[in-house]
Amino acid sequence: MGFDIIRLAHAEFNVTDLERARDFYVNALGFIETEADSNHIYLRAIEDGNHHCLVLTKADTPSLNHIAYRVGSEEELYKLEAFFQAQNLPMRWVEKDEERGQGRALRIQDPAGFPVEFFFEMEKAERMLQKFNQHTGAKIKRIDHANCLVTDIYCIHKWYMEELGFKCSEYTVVGSAENERLWASWLHRKPSVHDLALVNERGPRLHHIGFWVDDAKTILDACDYLAASGYALHIERSPGRHGTSNAFFVYVRDWDGHRLELYTGDYFTNDPDWEPIKWHLEDPQRATFWGTEPPQTWKKEAMLVQNILTGELVEVKEPVSKKVTK
Amino acid sequence: MGFDIIRLAHAEFNVTDLERARDFYVNALGFIETEADSNHIYLRAIEDGNHHCLVLTKADTPSLNHIAYRVGSEEELYKLEAFFQAQNLPMRWVEKDEERGQGRALRIQDPAGFPVEFFFEMEKAERMLQKFNQHTGAKIKRIDHANCLVTDIYCIHKWYMEELGFKCSEYTVVGSAENERLWASWLHRKPSVHDLALVNERGPRLHHIGFWVDDAKTILDACDYLAASGYALHIERSPGRHGTSNAFFVYVRDWDGHRLELYTGDYFTNDPDWEPIKWHLEDPQRATFWGTEPPQTWKKEAMLVQNILTGELVEVKEPVSKKVTK
Amino acid sequence: MGFDIIRLAHAEFNVTDLERARDFYVNALGFIETEADSNHIYLRAIEDGNHHCLVLTKADTPSLNHIAYRVGSEEELYKLEAFFQAQNLPMRWVEKDEERGQGRALRIQDPAGFPVEFFFEMEKAERMLQKFNQHTGAKIKRIDHANCLVTDIYCIHKWYMEELGFKCSEYTVVGSAENERLWASWLHRKPSVHDLALVNERGPRLHHIGFWVDDAKTILDACDYLAASGYALHIERSPGRHGTSNAFFVYVRDWDGHRLELYTGDYFTNDPDWEPIKWHLEDPQRATFWGTEPPQTWKKEAMLVQNILTGELVEVKEPVSKKVTK
Amino acid sequence: MGFDIIRLAHAEFNVTDLERARDFYVNALGFIETEADSNHIYLRAIEDGNHHCLVLTKADTPSLNHIAYRVGSEEELYKLEAFFQAQNLPMRWVEKDEERGQGRALRIQDPAGFPVEFFFEMEKAERMLQKFNQHTGAKIKRIDHANCLVTDIYCIHKWYMEELGFKCSEYTVVGSAENERLWASWLHRKPSVHDLALVNERGPRLHHIGFWVDDAKTILDACDYLAASGYALHIERSPGRHGTSNAFFVYVRDWDGHRLELYTGDYFTNDPDWEPIKWHLEDPQRATFWGTEPPQTWKKEAMLVQNILTGELVEVKEPVSKKVTK
Repeated sequence: MGFDIIRLAHAEFNVTDLERARDFYVNALGFIETEADSNHIYLRAIEDGNHHCLVLTKADTPSLNHIAYRVGSEEELYKLEAFFQAQNLPMRWVEKDEERGQGRALRIQDPAGFPVEFFFEMEKAERMLQKFNQHTGAKIKRIDHANCLVTDIYCIHKWYMEELGFKCSEYTVVGSAENERLWASWLHRKPSVHDLALVNERGPRLHHIGFWVDDAKTILDACDYLAASGYALHIERSPGRHGTSNAFFVYVRDWDGHRLELYTGDYFTNDPDWEPIKWHLEDPQRATFWGTEPPQTWKKEAMLVQNILTGELVEVKEPVSKKVTK
Repeated sequence: MGFDIIRLAHAEFNVTDLERARDFYVNALGFIETEADSNHIYLRAIEDGNHHCLVLTKADTPSLNHIAYRVGSEEELYKLEAFFQAQNLPMRWVEKDEERGQGRALRIQDPAGFPVEFFFEMEKAERMLQKFNQHTGAKIKRIDHANCLVTDIYCIHKWYMEELGFKCSEYTVVGSAENERLWASWLHRKPSVHDLALVNERGPRLHHIGFWVDDAKTILDACDYLAASGYALHIERSPGRHGTSNAFFVYVRDWDGHRLELYTGDYFTNDPDWEPIKWHLEDPQRATFWGTEPPQTWKKEAMLVQNILTGELVEVKEPVSKKVTK
Repeated sequence: MGFDIIRLAHAEFNVTDLERARDFYVNALGFIETEADSNHIYLRAIEDGNHHCLVLTKADTPSLNHIAYRVGSEEELYKLEAFFQAQNLPMRWVEKDEERGQGRALRIQDPAGFPVEFFFEMEKAERMLQKFNQHTGAKIKRIDHANCLVTDIYCIHKWYMEELGFKCSEYTVVGSAENERLWASWLHRKPSVHDLALVNERGPRLHHIGFWVDDAKTILDACDYLAASGYALHIERSPGRHGTSNAFFVYVRDWDGHRLELYTGDYFTNDPDWEPIKWHLEDPQRATFWGTEPPQTWKKEAMLVQNILTGELVEVKEPVSKKVTK
Repeated sequence: MGFDIIRLAHAEFNVTDLERARDFYVNALGFIETEADSNHIYLRAIEDGNHHCLVLTKADTPSLNHIAYRVGSEEELYKLEAFFQAQNLPMRWVEKDEERGQGRALRIQDPAGFPVEFFFEMEKAERMLQKFNQHTGAKIKRIDHANCLVTDIYCIHKWYMEELGFKCSEYTVVGSAENERLWASWLHRKPSVHDLALVNERGPRLHHIGFWVDDAKTILDACDYLAASGYALHIERSPGRHGTSNAFFVYVRDWDGHRLELYTGDYFTNDPDWEPIKWHLEDPQRATFWGTEPPQTWKKEAMLVQNILTGELVEVKEPVSKKVTK
């Protein structure tokens, strides 16, 4: 099976204070504000010719509103609708411009409990790629991936692979060789390491959204810029490299705790004989190829996610403990 | 129409002195030698899990032996065979291991006269991505694209787009608004700016093969490394940025004149509503976004290409001058 | 002999259009404007706690107004005065605040014909070093050196070394081993490669003022920033490395032709047994360690300099041709 | 008062296993081995024309053997001898080649208890600055500074300033405005931020020796290189920026716990009106301008130092607690 899903294309964060959020995302991180109204700010990155890759929405409680994948055609949305109906998943249509700049979109609660949207049509916006004298802050180029904490990694990994047609670039196992089970998985539609990372944890919770920057030096410059803008304490985890994905990263958090990874160092994954790279959870270079351990907040804290029908926060559950064999 | 072509996957250069070539490609540029025999050196880049992305073959005369695209399945080769037969193009099967490490492959002379191969199967080789202490020279990550000089840009552009299913990311036109014609085009299968660039010139000649490196600093380090290795004069064109493709580049040439672009600075091109970026040939920032003009050699010199059936060099012709409207 | 000269501390350029100059130096290069009046703009760099390191002065004809060295004390100025009087050099006192922010200063025409100032006192200005979110353009840190074309290299080199107490870090010779003569010399007071470079040429003319930036990546970012600001054609010579001084550089020119080197890659030169590094003019890696040759303008064009007493331009003469032995 | 001290020029570490140390310093960090015997390895950095900037000496217990300053002339050593005698400090002459490559040197126990050497003459060694293809590991350019933990910061700061002629670039205070006392100080002879940092702590202990690298990207590359060489866990503190000194840093430790800072981001400090930059210990951006807190080991652990006469380890004492006013 599989669907014509292009890539992770945007995320919408519920934030409690739009002005504070604007200062962080626009003034400090350098996102470009495409438009705004009293309840929303629509942001795009330097490379975007699209209306937005991040939406900030005024809410009483911070949470992930939804993440969204772009599909290859309008018809693909109807195929997805039929599939989700058959799967009996919570689903609703988001009408054109209900999310500004976007055509009709399908929003579901995925089997892991995440609010996930699929859309085809998006308004264009001016592409700033070569307006180098207007690039500021973290000089973010584009959205890259979502990192999601899920309670049943084996099932949700299988669902995205077998039903939606994602491919696996890397994965992590726990347990002895005879009794291995899946602990984390990096899945992609675009030929990079991932559009979607799944990690076995209390969930559903969003760990972070990863945004692409050009190179490691730009990430260091971003730290200087953030610190000078008053956001030193919003740099949660120092720059470093992950073993998995070979990412060079820094992690930052907004006023509400939404976490962003500034990310670079990817590789090409679409060769037809690609064999997913396997890591053991105990491998010390898996998560931290070098450098210090992440702080407790990075390990423990993540964002709650919204129910797409009720707007309530989805209840967080413990991960299922049954041992699965990949 | 269209075929399941994944990406440009390797090139084979005919070189006149294997040892001199090895010194340049392995010792100075840092390619990894997978294997060699008395007539060939098989090289891969840091990110490659594949047997080779560049083959050096002993020959009396330097030329492009062929470029090769990887396809998604063995069957795709037979579909391509049928299509090329119908098109009456020169074609032959390259048997398994005729090119070491590679499965059965189909080689044609494309309508522009270029020797082009399609293959599915390739032996694996150790991936060096995180063996950072073994990365040397230019620290090349992977092959990226071929830049081909063709005499009938309009036809060949159309053929790769409409018959083979390439997409266009950017293009250049000449002439007045009422009488514009295509001058160059950047075509891709993987969602980057290009796998194949076509430029209106005397042809068929290969201008360069582009190889991906991580970032601009790595390109500067490569220049220092090359110069200290005795190859200062092999750096043909100083580092700079192209307007088209937003590439940060340096151009180097081997002992036989084969030209490589060390390249970084790409962007994502697979959004379904991508509109190719249009440049005018007269735009001063098109080819040289900043910095000095390329030297005459860069403008005038390029490699002859080999006939896939006879091994002879393909005769170079003047570009057709008829004005075409895109 | 020798005097307590600290370092090259500023330059003053005569420019024909202050507003155009401001756009180039402030908006594009990112110099910080300390203050301005109808005839002057006083600029400082990111690291400066000083009022200025570059002054732009309205004039009918572009030229070098003067370069200035800072000395270690007020008394040193009077020692210099006595010495210059004994040497019978054209000299005048520049009274406090005649050049805004500066204490009483001594200005001479040096034996090569250059307008050179010595000062001790300078007003403080806010240091922007860690206000990273206000760094723009080329992110210039400080002034580094002046590159001066002189007609009698041997004499002027000797004068700066023996009379003023400069030290030589590197030099270039021409001619055969038996009949070598000095062609260029890099002289310093601060323990870097140079405060003053002297080159045998038609003179007196100022080739460029070198400004320090943090690293090579910053120089590339500067090029992108300049190009996006409309100054692509003001980038005269592409980024590259010099053999002499090991500098990584780019050369840019303002509207009037004043040339700046953005410069990084220096080393420490104050060890007491430092032996000046000797280069032969014919060594291909001397001026261009790698990369393309400089354009003709870079080789031929330089700025005229002003007479400190009359304000007239100093007449340019041919270099003396007698062969000297170092 | 003051002496003609040029700069911190080398350190000697006592290590328990020379081969393990060689693997770390030469193979992983990329120091160049000038020469070795059964008990010593003499290392130099890329920029060095000197015999060594780091000596590894076989010993039963790891400790700092000594740090050494270069002076401007042989005579200066005799002036220092007279001064130290008058001060009644433990002192001895180290004869020529007792430390290989070095002329006669004077070694003292400074008032803080540190083993400090002064020397003038040093053998030359080949300078590798432009042999870029032989630069490996951390690509260390030169030694920069020593960071020393002292029990009586006020007195030792005053001694280095007033007696030896060091200058202060930055300092840290604790306490309220009315009752401030000195907590740390950055002192220099060369016109950078420091040759010597003094910090109020249990002492005498050496916190680290700082080595200069070209830029922040080189520090990140060093981390990748170290990790791939098996030294991931030797990277003690992730890359980041200090507020004080504006350094971009990473901290690494050898097998015996000797700590090195790879360091870049300095500025010029020799202007005659330099006013030391004052920091409060409570300023969160003082030590960690951005990024995560250092690990406990970085805060707590440091190397014992050797008695220059007995070879015994100097006893560690608590810092004096009396409040001093700067």
